[in-house]
Amino acid sequence: MAVAVRRTRRTDLELVDQLAGFGVATIHEAQGRTGLCAARLRPIYRPVRVAGNALTCEVAPGDNWSIHVAVEMAQPGDLLVVTPTSPCDDGYFGELLATSLRAHGVRGLVIDAGVRDVAELTAMNFPVWSKTINAQGTVKETPGNVQTPIVCAGVYVRPGDVVIGDDDGVVVVPYENVTSVLEASRVREMNEEDKRARLRGGELSVDVFEMREKLAERGLTYRDATDA
Amino acid sequence: MAVAVRRTRRTDLELVDQLAGFGVATIHEAQGRTGLCAARLRPIYRPVRVAGNALTCEVAPGDNWSIHVAVEMAQPGDLLVVTPTSPCDDGYFGELLATSLRAHGVRGLVIDAGVRDVAELTAMNFPVWSKTINAQGTVKETPGNVQTPIVCAGVYVRPGDVVIGDDDGVVVVPYENVTSVLEASRVREMNEEDKRARLRGGELSVDVFEMREKLAERGLTYRDATDA
Amino acid sequence: MAVAVRRTRRTDLELVDQLAGFGVATIHEAQGRTGLCAARLRPIYRPVRVAGNALTCEVAPGDNWSIHVAVEMAQPGDLLVVTPTSPCDDGYFGELLATSLRAHGVRGLVIDAGVRDVAELTAMNFPVWSKTINAQGTVKETPGNVQTPIVCAGVYVRPGDVVIGDDDGVVVVPYENVTSVLEASRVREMNEEDKRARLRGGELSVDVFEMREKLAERGLTYRDATDA
Amino acid sequence: MAVAVRRTRRTDLELVDQLAGFGVATIHEAQGRTGLCAARLRPIYRPVRVAGNALTCEVAPGDNWSIHVAVEMAQPGDLLVVTPTSPCDDGYFGELLATSLRAHGVRGLVIDAGVRDVAELTAMNFPVWSKTINAQGTVKETPGNVQTPIVCAGVYVRPGDVVIGDDDGVVVVPYENVTSVLEASRVREMNEEDKRARLRGGELSVDVFEMREKLAERGLTYRDATDA
Amino acid sequence: MAVAVRRTRRTDLELVDQLAGFGVATIHEAQGRTGLCAARLRPIYRPVRVAGNALTCEVAPGDNWSIHVAVEMAQPGDLLVVTPTSPCDDGYFGELLATSLRAHGVRGLVIDAGVRDVAELTAMNFPVWSKTINAQGTVKETPGNVQTPIVCAGVYVRPGDVVIGDDDGVVVVPYENVTSVLEASRVREMNEEDKRARLRGGELSVDVFEMREKLAERGLTYRDATDA
Amino acid sequence: MAVAVRRTRRTDLELVDQLAGFGVATIHEAQGRTGLCAARLRPIYRPVRVAGNALTCEVAPGDNWSIHVAVEMAQPGDLLVVTPTSPCDDGYFGELLATSLRAHGVRGLVIDAGVRDVAELTAMNFPVWSKTINAQGTVKETPGNVQTPIVCAGVYVRPGDVVIGDDDGVVVVPYENVTSVLEASRVREMNEEDKRARLRGGELSVDVFEMREKLAERGLTYRDATDA
Repeated sequence: MAVAVRRTRRTDLELVDQLAGFGVATIHEAQGRTGLCAARLRPIYRPVRVAGNALTCEVAPGDNWSIHVAVEMAQPGDLLVVTPTSPCDDGYFGELLATSLRAHGVRGLVIDAGVRDVAELTAMNFPVWSKTINAQGTVKETPGNVQTPIVCAGVYVRPGDVVIGDDDGVVVVPYENVTSVLEASRVREMNEEDKRARLRGGELSVDVFEMREKLAERGLTYRDATDA
Repeated sequence: MAVAVRRTRRTDLELVDQLAGFGVATIHEAQGRTGLCAARLRPIYRPVRVAGNALTCEVAPGDNWSIHVAVEMAQPGDLLVVTPTSPCDDGYFGELLATSLRAHGVRGLVIDAGVRDVAELTAMNFPVWSKTINAQGTVKETPGNVQTPIVCAGVYVRPGDVVIGDDDGVVVVPYENVTSVLEASRVREMNEEDKRARLRGGELSVDVFEMREKLAERGLTYRDATDA
Repeated sequence: MAVAVRRTRRTDLELVDQLAGFGVATIHEAQGRTGLCAARLRPIYRPVRVAGNALTCEVAPGDNWSIHVAVEMAQPGDLLVVTPTSPCDDGYFGELLATSLRAHGVRGLVIDAGVRDVAELTAMNFPVWSKTINAQGTVKETPGNVQTPIVCAGVYVRPGDVVIGDDDGVVVVPYENVTSVLEASRVREMNEEDKRARLRGGELSVDVFEMREKLAERGLTYRDATDA
Repeated sequence: MAVAVRRTRRTDLELVDQLAGFGVATIHEAQGRTGLCAARLRPIYRPVRVAGNALTCEVAPGDNWSIHVAVEMAQPGDLLVVTPTSPCDDGYFGELLATSLRAHGVRGLVIDAGVRDVAELTAMNFPVWSKTINAQGTVKETPGNVQTPIVCAGVYVRPGDVVIGDDDGVVVVPYENVTSVLEASRVREMNEEDKRARLRGGELSVDVFEMREKLAERGLTYRDATDA
Repeated sequence: MAVAVRRTRRTDLELVDQLAGFGVATIHEAQGRTGLCAARLRPIYRPVRVAGNALTCEVAPGDNWSIHVAVEMAQPGDLLVVTPTSPCDDGYFGELLATSLRAHGVRGLVIDAGVRDVAELTAMNFPVWSKTINAQGTVKETPGNVQTPIVCAGVYVRPGDVVIGDDDGVVVVPYENVTSVLEASRVREMNEEDKRARLRGGELSVDVFEMREKLAERGLTYRDATDA
Repeated sequence: MAVAVRRTRRTDLELVDQLAGFGVATIHEAQGRTGLCAARLRPIYRPVRVAGNALTCEVAPGDNWSIHVAVEMAQPGDLLVVTPTSPCDDGYFGELLATSLRAHGVRGLVIDAGVRDVAELTAMNFPVWSKTINAQGTVKETPGNVQTPIVCAGVYVRPGDVVIGDDDGVVVVPYENVTSVLEASRVREMNEEDKRARLRGGELSVDVFEMREKLAERGLTYRDATDA
């Protein structure tokens, strides 16, 4: 009953690459604090940053078969996003699959499960965000859906949404929002540059961000210590 | 209803810096195995070691507003210690706040919650111990107390207690104990040096530490394998 | 009531060293996916790989006394395997014990509990796989069994079984299986080399592993996207 | 920037009530093992079973304001489904809100966070599935979206999807699938009745489900014990 | 180095019993949302509610010796509060200790660790809040402090503070605050009664609590669904 | 490659039933605090107590096929013990399998994974200890070993070992030890009866168990409070 969908939407790689110019925290802010995968997804090495078109894949617990089907669907610039149909920490992915994905231009892996061969994956500079590291192997008995909408680490992801990963985690930008998120990210970075200079110079953030009045309204008071 | 307390007690920085000469495990032993923060607090990079005066700060869940107030209270040599009023893994702290803290001489951060911008914080060599890494942002709606006694990761901390962090974790030394803990740490290190030399030379620890009699009393027996 | 068993079985070090030529994932596969310790055991530094004869040791919660007894039982080429009699995250092991173990030719530590002094252990290149890092010390009041069969991180381990650790985790090879697992590991690596070359050249894994027919049988279908 | 959507789709209550005639496990099977919320959602009392139209609600961490907005959107036969925008275990919901929801015909609550007043909620027979029980209160500073699509405990839920909860957990049936899932649930239950009778009579499931041939194909062998 | 402190402060039992008239959630609110133990502490049976003077006790991991010392310090109306010096899930407490505590008028147990004999404790109606249920026994080798200030499940507790537990969890009221918290609890309950009646009658909480203006200010907008 | 072993050892049911006369905590103590399954195994209803011959079964992640094979191996008085080959929380077991097991005289289930149909299992009074409750179904593609030694929740279990479960958890008695554990359990219960009477009468446990001298030796001191 599984399906692999061909000719799915993809976001223009030029836009994808522009998103890779920003960090996950910035992009997450720029799209209204949505799209962030759960913090259990961590990179297997740091520092790292990459963006790609979501190539989505569901896997059965302890069964990585559909990842092989996903390779068949891959296009250059994709980032493979894998979610198990029930929680599983097995090592679904290793160096052989990474070798194959790289041969097809896939830029990395986001998986809400385990991976193995992390020494080899690190040596290859193949970016991976996973829930755990685990040598436990998987079977190939039950195919899952490939290139259909999924929920990965709490985020709804469709083929062709843009996925960005860095040291802080993974964020998903729906394809409709790519242009607006790019613009908002640029604005955000520019604003921050000015603030950063002032803070570096020793100005207080309660002044830089003009917080004093609102802090007082919300009940903050100051007093001197009585015990010092 | 939040309060920020000024002119709180601080421990002399010369003593603080002497404590930084010892590791967390040593200091924890030297003060009778008290004051150790829960092991969920981990450094964002290793190796690292720092000590500072506790600058304490409570934050609401998903709300980092009072960290900005804490910056206003900061003195050179402080180490910011942040605890949420209920458990939260959001990314309360990033590179902008670190820039500001550094401008005021703050030496690092201990937080029983999440942080973000870890690539930038690592590049800055800004020491951070946190419960998790998470790009999720926070709001500024509910101020918390600053420079009042708090419980952080299971340890009671007051402004001006000394906080030491290294690769093993974080330990808090109450200000009353600083001198005695320093002395006990020195004694402990000297004793260990002698033992280390003997162990390196191949002497058994059951001999070096004279354990044989007590082991027998507590029921340890030796026998030869029957299956080898 | 604790016992320390002398003259236990050990696997020939030449065979042990040959096993160290393979990664944990390969060995785990080669012995039919058995013997893998739970993924909570992680190396304190990476990359790392080591193999040794299991030197087994039970410890009471918060009590590392029997590790000292284990040192007395140690032989060159051993790998110390420690399990608590009930779950505990305390720091059972540090630099002094590592110094002593190294003096007796022990190659590393696998412990389903916490360790401390990780900066020093890393500087010494002393391999450790543990459940956590924790400065919390332990007492010496209740000895546990040394060199008896134990369960460590879900795996039954006997003295003289071979234990291999690397970046992916820890696997145990029962002494009876060492020769057959070595042979199966060699065969597995050779087979993979051929597949790797084909995958690197861009062949699809569904072809290299001849999966298409079975995928269809198990209900995988392909369709074109309707929304792209 | 939050929105509350009025006049959203709802599934006919007659169909909803028919779904309540089946258990969560049956419905989950009947729709191809999709739609099951993560097992961390547990009922606060047992036994319990209820179905309703999803009334969806996002809440900020530690902030239950939008639940009050959700009450305003409620219709008889709804089941409130609440998800925090980042993980939080605070007690978002208690007896006052349950009283209000009941006054508007809402049948229960599914929340991927904490609840409180569980003694009162139990006495009221107000069904709740939650991640935890926690007396910790919340603020009202940041509204979230109401009646928009959300991800709750790993499942994508839209207003008007049908949500069914019982002792086993919570399952979501997309509105498009309600009729087909009802039919498949009926078929499944009828088939099970026949099997149950045979199994109760002592027939083996390997015979009832005709597994012997496939078990042999997949490598199962039988042998007699040598040690008994 | 452990100490047991005699003649510690206690709160008047009449006040303690008045606090028991309110639920944990109410008291927690009434004292400004402070003093709530972590939600991992759960009652072993429900419903339950009790209040008592904190009789504080530290235990070593896997060692319940100082609970016996605490019995010696017990007074009628006490509630025993136990915290391990490092996290431990062993079963520190069972039916024999409960029998002894009851003989001395102790009203229950709060423990940030495990308990056993829960069938017997339930049959005795002896209230217990614990982190887990575990048959694992403990030793008696290392005494801990009794009747000194401790941190239990994240809350600082001193002898004679008042501890209240119910189905929602456990809250600690510092002895200085007992009178004011009682008064605030009464006010809170009265206010709620009025709101409850209005909500039961079908008034919306956004009206009862006059939220509409502030919701609009904070950006909530309403729109009609376009897809229904 | 899976095997199902016939004609395995079983412990005499008369002895098994005598063990059921004692609680898990008592038996665990009586055999030197060994054999206790991890506390994550909890009964689905309480109170409950049962003992049986271990009928062991390995299952693949998300695959309950070999449970059906285990039914074929079942004898009256067995207790089914199931462990996954890698951690999995799926619902491996429900009312149909319980019906079948009961028809063959199996007394209950211990599983280090999830179960479903808990309302029906409770109504049937079919005892189950599991890691979680989860409606998620499993496949039947990969058989596992039946009636071979396994590790379940950290304990090594062989066919014919005796397994006892109650409200406190699950303990395994190796078949060689059954007679001696029975005897030790009886002695332990008799000793406790005398102590219980004295404690109920108000004697202090530090006197009943003659702890005062040893407490002083280990450093316990008494002092009066200075702040009361």
